[in-house]
Amino acid sequence: MIVKERLMNMFARMRTFSGEGDGPGVYRLAFTDADWQARGYLIGMMKEIGLSVREDAFGNVIGRWEGAEPSLPAVMFGSHVDSVPNGGNYDGVLGVLAAIETVRSLKEDGFRPEHPLEIALFMCEESSRFGAATLGSRAMLGELSAEEAQRLKDKDGATLYEVLQGRGLVPDALGKPLYEGGVKAFFEVHIEQGKVLEHEKKSVGVVTGIAAPTRFRVRLTGNADHSGATPMALRHDAACAAAEIVLAAERLAVAESAPPAVATVGVLQIAPGVMNVIPGGAELGVDIRSIDGATKTRVADKLKAAVSEICGRRGVVSEIVPISDERPVAIRPSVLDFLDGICREADCSYMRLPSGAGHDAMHWAERVPTGMLFIPCRDGVSHNPEEYAAPDDILNAVRLLEKAVREASKKDVTFA
Amino acid sequence: MIVKERLMNMFARMRTFSGEGDGPGVYRLAFTDADWQARGYLIGMMKEIGLSVREDAFGNVIGRWEGAEPSLPAVMFGSHVDSVPNGGNYDGVLGVLAAIETVRSLKEDGFRPEHPLEIALFMCEESSRFGAATLGSRAMLGELSAEEAQRLKDKDGATLYEVLQGRGLVPDALGKPLYEGGVKAFFEVHIEQGKVLEHEKKSVGVVTGIAAPTRFRVRLTGNADHSGATPMALRHDAACAAAEIVLAAERLAVAESAPPAVATVGVLQIAPGVMNVIPGGAELGVDIRSIDGATKTRVADKLKAAVSEICGRRGVVSEIVPISDERPVAIRPSVLDFLDGICREADCSYMRLPSGAGHDAMHWAERVPTGMLFIPCRDGVSHNPEEYAAPDDILNAVRLLEKAVREASKKDVTFA
Repeated sequence: MIVKERLMNMFARMRTFSGEGDGPGVYRLAFTDADWQARGYLIGMMKEIGLSVREDAFGNVIGRWEGAEPSLPAVMFGSHVDSVPNGGNYDGVLGVLAAIETVRSLKEDGFRPEHPLEIALFMCEESSRFGAATLGSRAMLGELSAEEAQRLKDKDGATLYEVLQGRGLVPDALGKPLYEGGVKAFFEVHIEQGKVLEHEKKSVGVVTGIAAPTRFRVRLTGNADHSGATPMALRHDAACAAAEIVLAAERLAVAESAPPAVATVGVLQIAPGVMNVIPGGAELGVDIRSIDGATKTRVADKLKAAVSEICGRRGVVSEIVPISDERPVAIRPSVLDFLDGICREADCSYMRLPSGAGHDAMHWAERVPTGMLFIPCRDGVSHNPEEYAAPDDILNAVRLLEKAVREASKKDVTFA
Repeated sequence: MIVKERLMNMFARMRTFSGEGDGPGVYRLAFTDADWQARGYLIGMMKEIGLSVREDAFGNVIGRWEGAEPSLPAVMFGSHVDSVPNGGNYDGVLGVLAAIETVRSLKEDGFRPEHPLEIALFMCEESSRFGAATLGSRAMLGELSAEEAQRLKDKDGATLYEVLQGRGLVPDALGKPLYEGGVKAFFEVHIEQGKVLEHEKKSVGVVTGIAAPTRFRVRLTGNADHSGATPMALRHDAACAAAEIVLAAERLAVAESAPPAVATVGVLQIAPGVMNVIPGGAELGVDIRSIDGATKTRVADKLKAAVSEICGRRGVVSEIVPISDERPVAIRPSVLDFLDGICREADCSYMRLPSGAGHDAMHWAERVPTGMLFIPCRDGVSHNPEEYAAPDDILNAVRLLEKAVREASKKDVTFA
C-alpha cells in the first residue's frame, strides 16, 4: 500500500540535500556534493527495498527488481533529483520518490512482476550547471559524446568530462548507448510546472506529448531620428515593428488549437532607449513550442513571413538568427489510452495536456512506449523555493503509477 | 550685402571653440571655457560692427543698434552657441551668425532702422549641462529663480548658481525679468533637426509652432509564467500589452493631421527578459508632441484610455507615472503671413512646418510676435558631429532674415 507519511518523510529528507546559496531554496546542482549525497541516499533506499542497483559510466542509477521472466524487457520508471539554483523540492524528486514508494508498496503486497521493473535515477537533467538539459538520459541512450562532455563547462570552467572523472565515472565510455537491454515501457511522474491542471481543477494530467522549442532572434534596424522633429510618416521605428512582431507571434500561436502551440517573445530590447529618440534598433528573442513538429514549423514560418511583411512595409531592415530547432515528441495513443484507463479505474479527475517543458521522458518516448503523468503545482510555480505540490495530489499520482507499473509488468499487457 | 565667405569663415572660427572630449564633435557646454571664449569672440564681432553690447545677470548678451526712434520696442533676433557634448557646428550657431551677418550687411548698405535692432546671444540653451533647456531665455524673462539655480547641478555636482558666480555673474538677480524694454518682434533662424525639409526638397521652412512634450511612463505587471507550460489562453503577458500600447500610440498620433501630432515610445523594457519566461513586467516611456495643446492632450488622453482597455482585457495591471506636460506655443498668423511673404518675395521654395524640438524662441512666442525659420540639415542629423547644413541654404536663410529684419524695423510694419 502506498503510504502518504512515508512519502512525505522522503520529501522532507530530500530537502536536506542542498548546498549553500543566497536563497531559501534547494541548491543541488548536478554532480555537486549535495547531489551526490542525495544519490547515495536514494541508492541506499533502493537497496533497502531489495533492488539490485547498478550505475552506468555517466552515474545514472538503475535499481532492478528481477521479473518472473528475466529475459523480458523491463518496465522502467523514474526521473531526476538534481535542481536549479534556489530550486524547489518537487521538480524531478517526485518521479524518483514515486518510483521507490511504488516498488516498496508492490513488494509489501507480495506482488510478483512478470517483466523486470527498473527504477531510473537520471543524472544532470537540469541545464543549470552545464547549459544543456537531460544529459543523463542522453548519455544513457548514446546521444552524448565524450567530445561534447569536454566542451560543456560549468560557470567555474570545469568541463563535464572532468566533473565525471572527479566522481570516478567514465566519460570516455560516452557516445555509445550505456543502457543495454530492452525497455517495454517508461513512465515518469512530474509536477506540471504550469497552471493548466490547477486552472481546470484536475488532480492529474496525462501528457500527450513533450513540446520542444524552436527559437530564433529577430534583429531590426530602423532609423534613430529625433522624436519631436520627425513626422509620423517619415519614421522607420524599430519598436513599432517589434510590437507588430510580438502581436503576430501571439496571434499565430493562438490560431493553432489541435494540437495547440505557444509562442513567446521573452526577450525584447530597443536602442538607443531614450525618450527623445525614435528607436532605431530592436532585438527580439522568440520561443515557439508545440508537441507537433508540423504545427511548430507552421507557426515559425508564418511568423518569419510576418516579420518580412511588417519590416518591408515599415522600411525597417530585419535579420533572423536561428538559435535552436528541437524535435517535439508525441506520446503514443496506446500509452495515452492505457493511462486514461488507469485514471478512470482509480476514479480520479484527469485531463490530457501537453508538456511545455522538456523531460527525461522525451528521449525515451522516441524509442519505447513512454507515458508521463503530471500533478498540479501551486500557481504553476517551479524552479523556485515556492514550488509546492499538495500531499494528496502526490499520493494520488503515486497510486496511479503503482497501478500503471503493476499492469505494464504483465506479459499480456502490450503497447502498440 | 550678405557675404557667403564671411559667413563660412565665422562658422569655421566657431568650430575652434571646443573643449576636449572623446568624439570628433564640438564640446561647448554652457559656461565652460570654450563657451566663454566663443561668447567673447561674438561680443568682439558685435562691437566691431558698431553695436553697443550689454550683458545681463545670467550672462545673456544683447548687441543693440539704436533705432531712429530709440523709445520704440526693439526687433530682436539671435539664438545660442552652447552645444551638447560631441555636438555639431550649426545648432544655435546659425542663428547667432545669421544675426551678425544681417546687421553687418544692413550697416554696409547704409540702412537706418526706425525701431532699434538687437542681436541676442542666449546662454545655456542645451539641457546637456544642467538637465534643463533654454535657461538663458527663461532667466531673461524672469522664469528662472535663484532657488532653481541652486538646485540645478552639473555632473560634477556644481550648481548653476555657483557656476554663474564663477563667471562673475549675479544669480541673486534671478527671478524677475532681466530684460527691460519692449520687443516688437523676435526672429530665430535654426537648422531643422529633422528630415521634413530635406524630404520635401524645400530650402526653408516657416515654423508654425513649437511642440512641447507630454511625457509619462507606463508600468505593466502581468504574470511571469513558464513560456512552454502556459497555454496562450492562461497568459498575462506584459510584453504583448506593451506591444499593443506602442501601436496605439503610433495610431493615435497618425490620426491627428491638422495640426499634426507625434507619439514615440522611446523607452521599452521588459522583465525578466529571458527566452523561457513570459514577460511579467514592462515599462514604457511615452513622448507625445504637438504644437497644439488640445491635440496633444487628446492623444495623451486617448492613449491612457487605450492602456486601460488593453490591460483590462489582458489581465495586466497598469500604472501611469507622469513625467512632464509642457505647453506648446503657436506662432501668430500675422508673423506666419509676414514670413511667407518674405519667402515669396525672395522667390525661394519654402513650406510651413512645426518644430518638434524646443528653442529659445518658444519663450518669446508667448509674449511678443515671434517667428522662426528652419533650414534643412543633412539626413535630419543634429546633436552629432555629422550635423551639416549646406552653405547655400545658410546663405539663403540669412538673406531672408535680413529682409525680415529690414521690414520689421519699419514703423509702419506691425504684427497683430
